[in-house]
Amino acid sequence: MAARKEFGPSQPFKGMNINGSLHMTIQTGVLIETLSALGAKVRWCSCNIFSTQDHAAAGIAKAGTATVFAWKGETLPEYWWCTEQMMTVPGADGCDQLVDDGGDATLLIHKGKEFEEKFAKDGSLPDPSSTTNAEFKCILQLLRDSIQVDKTKYTRMAAKCKGVSEETTTGVHRLREMAAKGELLFPAINVNDCVTKSKFDNVYGCRHSLPDSIMRATDVMIGGKRALVAGYGDVGKGCAFAMRGAGARVLITEIDPICALQACMEGFQVVTLEEVVGEVDIFTSATGNFKIITLDHMKKMKNNAIVCNIGHFDNEIAMEDLEKCAGIKVENIKPQVDRFVFPDGHGVIVLASGRLVNLGCATGHPSFVMSCSFTNQVLAQLDILENCTKAKKYKNDVYLLPKKLDEKVAALHLPALGASMTKLSKEQADYIGVPVEGPFKPDTYRY
Amino acid sequence: MAARKEFGPSQPFKGMNINGSLHMTIQTGVLIETLSALGAKVRWCSCNIFSTQDHAAAGIAKAGTATVFAWKGETLPEYWWCTEQMMTVPGADGCDQLVDDGGDATLLIHKGKEFEEKFAKDGSLPDPSSTTNAEFKCILQLLRDSIQVDKTKYTRMAAKCKGVSEETTTGVHRLREMAAKGELLFPAINVNDCVTKSKFDNVYGCRHSLPDSIMRATDVMIGGKRALVAGYGDVGKGCAFAMRGAGARVLITEIDPICALQACMEGFQVVTLEEVVGEVDIFTSATGNFKIITLDHMKKMKNNAIVCNIGHFDNEIAMEDLEKCAGIKVENIKPQVDRFVFPDGHGVIVLASGRLVNLGCATGHPSFVMSCSFTNQVLAQLDILENCTKAKKYKNDVYLLPKKLDEKVAALHLPALGASMTKLSKEQADYIGVPVEGPFKPDTYRY
Amino acid sequence: MAARKEFGPSQPFKGMNINGSLHMTIQTGVLIETLSALGAKVRWCSCNIFSTQDHAAAGIAKAGTATVFAWKGETLPEYWWCTEQMMTVPGADGCDQLVDDGGDATLLIHKGKEFEEKFAKDGSLPDPSSTTNAEFKCILQLLRDSIQVDKTKYTRMAAKCKGVSEETTTGVHRLREMAAKGELLFPAINVNDCVTKSKFDNVYGCRHSLPDSIMRATDVMIGGKRALVAGYGDVGKGCAFAMRGAGARVLITEIDPICALQACMEGFQVVTLEEVVGEVDIFTSATGNFKIITLDHMKKMKNNAIVCNIGHFDNEIAMEDLEKCAGIKVENIKPQVDRFVFPDGHGVIVLASGRLVNLGCATGHPSFVMSCSFTNQVLAQLDILENCTKAKKYKNDVYLLPKKLDEKVAALHLPALGASMTKLSKEQADYIGVPVEGPFKPDTYRY
Amino acid sequence: MAARKEFGPSQPFKGMNINGSLHMTIQTGVLIETLSALGAKVRWCSCNIFSTQDHAAAGIAKAGTATVFAWKGETLPEYWWCTEQMMTVPGADGCDQLVDDGGDATLLIHKGKEFEEKFAKDGSLPDPSSTTNAEFKCILQLLRDSIQVDKTKYTRMAAKCKGVSEETTTGVHRLREMAAKGELLFPAINVNDCVTKSKFDNVYGCRHSLPDSIMRATDVMIGGKRALVAGYGDVGKGCAFAMRGAGARVLITEIDPICALQACMEGFQVVTLEEVVGEVDIFTSATGNFKIITLDHMKKMKNNAIVCNIGHFDNEIAMEDLEKCAGIKVENIKPQVDRFVFPDGHGVIVLASGRLVNLGCATGHPSFVMSCSFTNQVLAQLDILENCTKAKKYKNDVYLLPKKLDEKVAALHLPALGASMTKLSKEQADYIGVPVEGPFKPDTYRY
Repeated sequence: MAARKEFGPSQPFKGMNINGSLHMTIQTGVLIETLSALGAKVRWCSCNIFSTQDHAAAGIAKAGTATVFAWKGETLPEYWWCTEQMMTVPGADGCDQLVDDGGDATLLIHKGKEFEEKFAKDGSLPDPSSTTNAEFKCILQLLRDSIQVDKTKYTRMAAKCKGVSEETTTGVHRLREMAAKGELLFPAINVNDCVTKSKFDNVYGCRHSLPDSIMRATDVMIGGKRALVAGYGDVGKGCAFAMRGAGARVLITEIDPICALQACMEGFQVVTLEEVVGEVDIFTSATGNFKIITLDHMKKMKNNAIVCNIGHFDNEIAMEDLEKCAGIKVENIKPQVDRFVFPDGHGVIVLASGRLVNLGCATGHPSFVMSCSFTNQVLAQLDILENCTKAKKYKNDVYLLPKKLDEKVAALHLPALGASMTKLSKEQADYIGVPVEGPFKPDTYRY
Repeated sequence: MAARKEFGPSQPFKGMNINGSLHMTIQTGVLIETLSALGAKVRWCSCNIFSTQDHAAAGIAKAGTATVFAWKGETLPEYWWCTEQMMTVPGADGCDQLVDDGGDATLLIHKGKEFEEKFAKDGSLPDPSSTTNAEFKCILQLLRDSIQVDKTKYTRMAAKCKGVSEETTTGVHRLREMAAKGELLFPAINVNDCVTKSKFDNVYGCRHSLPDSIMRATDVMIGGKRALVAGYGDVGKGCAFAMRGAGARVLITEIDPICALQACMEGFQVVTLEEVVGEVDIFTSATGNFKIITLDHMKKMKNNAIVCNIGHFDNEIAMEDLEKCAGIKVENIKPQVDRFVFPDGHGVIVLASGRLVNLGCATGHPSFVMSCSFTNQVLAQLDILENCTKAKKYKNDVYLLPKKLDEKVAALHLPALGASMTKLSKEQADYIGVPVEGPFKPDTYRY
Repeated sequence: MAARKEFGPSQPFKGMNINGSLHMTIQTGVLIETLSALGAKVRWCSCNIFSTQDHAAAGIAKAGTATVFAWKGETLPEYWWCTEQMMTVPGADGCDQLVDDGGDATLLIHKGKEFEEKFAKDGSLPDPSSTTNAEFKCILQLLRDSIQVDKTKYTRMAAKCKGVSEETTTGVHRLREMAAKGELLFPAINVNDCVTKSKFDNVYGCRHSLPDSIMRATDVMIGGKRALVAGYGDVGKGCAFAMRGAGARVLITEIDPICALQACMEGFQVVTLEEVVGEVDIFTSATGNFKIITLDHMKKMKNNAIVCNIGHFDNEIAMEDLEKCAGIKVENIKPQVDRFVFPDGHGVIVLASGRLVNLGCATGHPSFVMSCSFTNQVLAQLDILENCTKAKKYKNDVYLLPKKLDEKVAALHLPALGASMTKLSKEQADYIGVPVEGPFKPDTYRY
Repeated sequence: MAARKEFGPSQPFKGMNINGSLHMTIQTGVLIETLSALGAKVRWCSCNIFSTQDHAAAGIAKAGTATVFAWKGETLPEYWWCTEQMMTVPGADGCDQLVDDGGDATLLIHKGKEFEEKFAKDGSLPDPSSTTNAEFKCILQLLRDSIQVDKTKYTRMAAKCKGVSEETTTGVHRLREMAAKGELLFPAINVNDCVTKSKFDNVYGCRHSLPDSIMRATDVMIGGKRALVAGYGDVGKGCAFAMRGAGARVLITEIDPICALQACMEGFQVVTLEEVVGEVDIFTSATGNFKIITLDHMKKMKNNAIVCNIGHFDNEIAMEDLEKCAGIKVENIKPQVDRFVFPDGHGVIVLASGRLVNLGCATGHPSFVMSCSFTNQVLAQLDILENCTKAKKYKNDVYLLPKKLDEKVAALHLPALGASMTKLSKEQADYIGVPVEGPFKPDTYRY
């Protein structure tokens, strides 16, 4: 809101196309409206087949604020069709700037250009049968169809796009890999690692939305239960404290010794999944990695153990293996809550089909957190405008937002919480060698 | 379940009528089924106009387990009509034993007999216009109608009823008042003060269901907010720790210096409502008293402050005054969530119309807590059977359940939580002067 | 202080002898001074061989406020000698009223009278060789010597004593056992179970003094450690939250299913000692029972495990067995910190020789807690004065203090913590059926 | 210990002089012994006039492990004399590598060279009367004396020193300022910002040692008190959670909006000191800045408010102003605990004369934390050896240790806490783009 008030009058995005792939929720609607209010023409899709709130999508579409391709419960082919439609700007080669969450939109441009170049070289088309990955199969089919219609669609799109702001850990991982290989086609702003995004969206957002999801989905008492959280990064930290706050006994799995030591120092038990799989009541995967909770784990769980994912993709849980497991039966208890019953009679309750539980079973992060997060997105798009579109200051690499902007996001949100800020005197600022108005910390500072 | 297994075969309630007034939810359904499985003919109504889960009521009715008079969203006259129907046992003077929650059913019998005796004496009928209290008006109208049809209906009902087991603090208060005045017509078992009821239902149940309710109803981030809890009894303690666990700053109001000191020692700020009314984001009334949050308070609240009640009756919040406030406008945001806008433009968001928020905006306490609570109810009904119906050991007074039964309820619930119990040796039991198998604590013990 | 101001002028204890057996610390000094200021002649000893703060004892003795028999590090015979001296009032048969902690002084009177009567009957003297218990041996020797000098000393003392106020769970246990057998010789006030004593002294006092003791004694980081607390009563609850607050992972052992369920609901792991003995870093016994941590347990502990007792007697830990263990070596690390090294090379670090660790290794409970506790003692002594000495209202049984006095103790301590109290309106008080000025809760209330 | 075992045999520091200025405690003794065991000749002084544990200094000196210049309770001139002696290596121009804490040793070299150059240019000597800062006056006097004896002592020392590893935030601040101005004379390793140092030493170390200090110094109950922590950086976070864990109500002051928002999200109240100065019971300064608690603040505090500093220098509290305040009286309650009584009769209790309270009133951080911290120091000295002394890879700038070493420190400490680590599969490592054996996180990761 404050951003709209400050930047709206100058219409910085006037005449520009900004496309986005990000959970199409009420909160995202506010981001879209802000980009629009700053002058942009916006096209949008969701970055998750289940996360769209249909009334949010409808509201945005109806108001004419943006062109939206998203509904709750897309199939995978439908999901990628939506992504393609979003990317395809009528009357232009593509968008000027991109907002991404998880990197699917960015992936599509990069894969599109790669296969178009391959086709130009040797006439070969992408082959969906070359992969067993269901999602990548969709991408290859989509590109196979696209190349036959327009041989340079994604190559032109890549040239047109001046930069992307990426929302998530997973997406930033992918961007860094591409940058490291020299394959990144435009600069990227890492919004995920702004403190007011990473700590607030990940830690505090998940602290709120994990118990919210479990309570809405199952009505199970969390107090007294044994709750395992896989991963003690920012998301895992939020989940662990939420479960403790609700009275559960919390167990952590970790691969990183520093995070494991942090978990120990907070009094959480650090275990391997294998050691405790038969005793845990609630499993939450919060890693951003894959194959965390396997079919073998689920076979050994106690009856009615709850399994959910708040990390990123649904492959944190071996859903595909579970669905294909011989003799498995599925009872749909209510929307987004399925009980998978094994031949031995014990069942596990899987929330949101293994996709993000806070989007599938609750309403995502609460608006306060998303406001922090999306204010960062707006400032990132303005930063791309300054340093990529207007000037060419950034290379095809991954950049953090300047800390001053990060602090600004925090400062904008403090009055609502009744905080009284202390001001540095000039003398004190000089003593610690920072400007009176900030930024107050070196870039290495971890908060 | 364990109770059903243990007592079902002997059919202790065979041929008896047991009536109940208690939130008609899925969990209550299990209590009703258990009473029925032990041989009783059961009639039921809800003790709150909003708390009925219609599918639960329908399920019980359809299965023929009990005769149910309850639906979500009753009017006050409908509510008391339901209570009367429940109390009226076809072919009998009334029920043999009663289950009550809040004391409305017990009140009706007592008031019924009182007005019938008055009528017998001087021919006067109850006069609904003699009170401004909307609920008491309904009772008077109901009894006025009843006496004209059957002059001794409630007098016979009172004679027939051998005892009541009461679920709540409020109900026990009323019973104690009646017992103190010598007006109590039959013995009462105080289930509310069993440890496995009071501490688990009140503390842990509310710790779960308060944030559950607020999150479902409002999607507001609790973290960072200022949350005031009025009352630091068992319910208030559960609420305060829930709000802190979710990251809120918690403020407490108290009248009892011991409870206030406890709040201080846990690091909560003890204030008066007047001191902080303009700064608080979320107000929760948890007192069991009335007129806690007044119209004047609500006039001074910040815009979009959230107001809810988890104590007992809706009169903890001055709903009547609020609704009648000159110039007030009501926006219904969604079912059970209303925004009352004052003429000056600021609004307060009232949940569940001021009635119990965990029943109105969530699904009540989770089943684990209710299982503790209702196992106590079954044991209480069996205790009434032994000591009131079969024998006349109890006077018309208020009794606690024997501690051994309280410990039994706990023991039945521990295995599910993975607890390994230590056993006293004979030598150790003798050393502290308790039986090896318990009870382990004196009656003064506070847990 | 407030008690001194209120009751001092009327000198209620004028001319009376009040004797006490209670840890001779700075805080106890304030209690002694208060009794003296109210007119009593006071004699005192400590109820624990290690708990005397010599400067506190010296201060009281020097000021002439009381006659004190206590020093830090008494031997057992010295301890009982001190107790006898304290009980022996020159020029009188004994004290008028008694303050006791753990029941040793009360025990001595009862055993004294018992053996004097036995001697009168059959001329037999107590035989120290008839017991293996080192403490009871001392008592028998003391009485053997006493009877030979004065055949009715303790019989006259028992007749003279009008009542005792007992400080601890352990002492109250003993009193209840005697009362149940009809052997109690005078009425007893149970100060231990005043809320402002039991909850504050036990829960909050131990929450403070357990980590204080461990940190002073060992300088070991508590964060990250596995800390087992044996017993989840009030003392255990305080210890468990203290250890969690300091970042430890807490494990609980319990015999009482209700307390075990409470521990589960707070997210603590309930185990048996045997299951985890080899993994725990810090063992704290908080039961009030005996033989909790056995020699066999200590043999299986990890190297440098810390073992301490905050329950009551040193027999919670099998110190005698440990000291006699074949091949054991003791390294005194510093006063009150001993490392017992087993023949296999692993050692356990025992604090305060197994006696109360907060008295041995720190300075006991902080003054705020003791102020609550000792204000109760003063009110209890005044209650004995009214109802036992002046009038004979109490039988030889165990009584609680009236709740109104308990609330008064709390109210006296609230202003220092900045709490603002809410006042009940008359209308509200009537609604819940309590006086406007309290007491606010029924006797069954558990806080 | 593990470092000694791994690197000891190869004697990497053989023939080298390593000098250090760091609190001369038992824990530091282990660091000194390790450097010595790796072949170094070590000279040491303390970096704080109160922090030396005399038995630790004596132990090191007696064993001949290092030459030590430190005692508890140095005067300022003595402190700087010790620093100079430590820096002056007999038979060499100075040390090869330096360990510093707070930057005083580094400051002395830089100031020494600066004034020697000034003297060479214009013959002017440092003038102690040119400053009112008591410490800087000592430095100027020391250099004035030194230049008259040896005109190039510090210039040669600077040339000889190949690098410094700095322990604290404050020291790193100073280094960064010098580097930014191009004045830094040798490379510096920032040990403070290793995660296993900053998060463990600062957060968890202070969480342990702040309550330890307050309890030892004052025996005051922390529960129920209002505790203000100035600064919510890593040290402040540890302090805030320690105070809450002990039952206090915590208030925070902050200048950085991000840290303030974090405090809000944890439910702490963010205030200015001015707003609450009259209500707070315990003030803890944790900023690393100066003039945080002023004389004016102390004049307005309540009687017997406790004031302490766990940040860095004693100038966080206006000790100089306090001592000079007209009419002030000082009561020394016990060593390191002084009550300053104002003319109006109210007093404030200042711990450790405003210097680091955990060093002055307790025994510093517990050994587990210091082991993490000092393992980093050893690895930093080895890094300087490789990249500054043997090779010239580093410029005169401030460097972080490689993350791999940071993770190594954590991994070395996990087994003692009973943590079971999960291992990444190759497939999972590839999926998230990290090596199987780590490092696992990008440099921007905040933990």
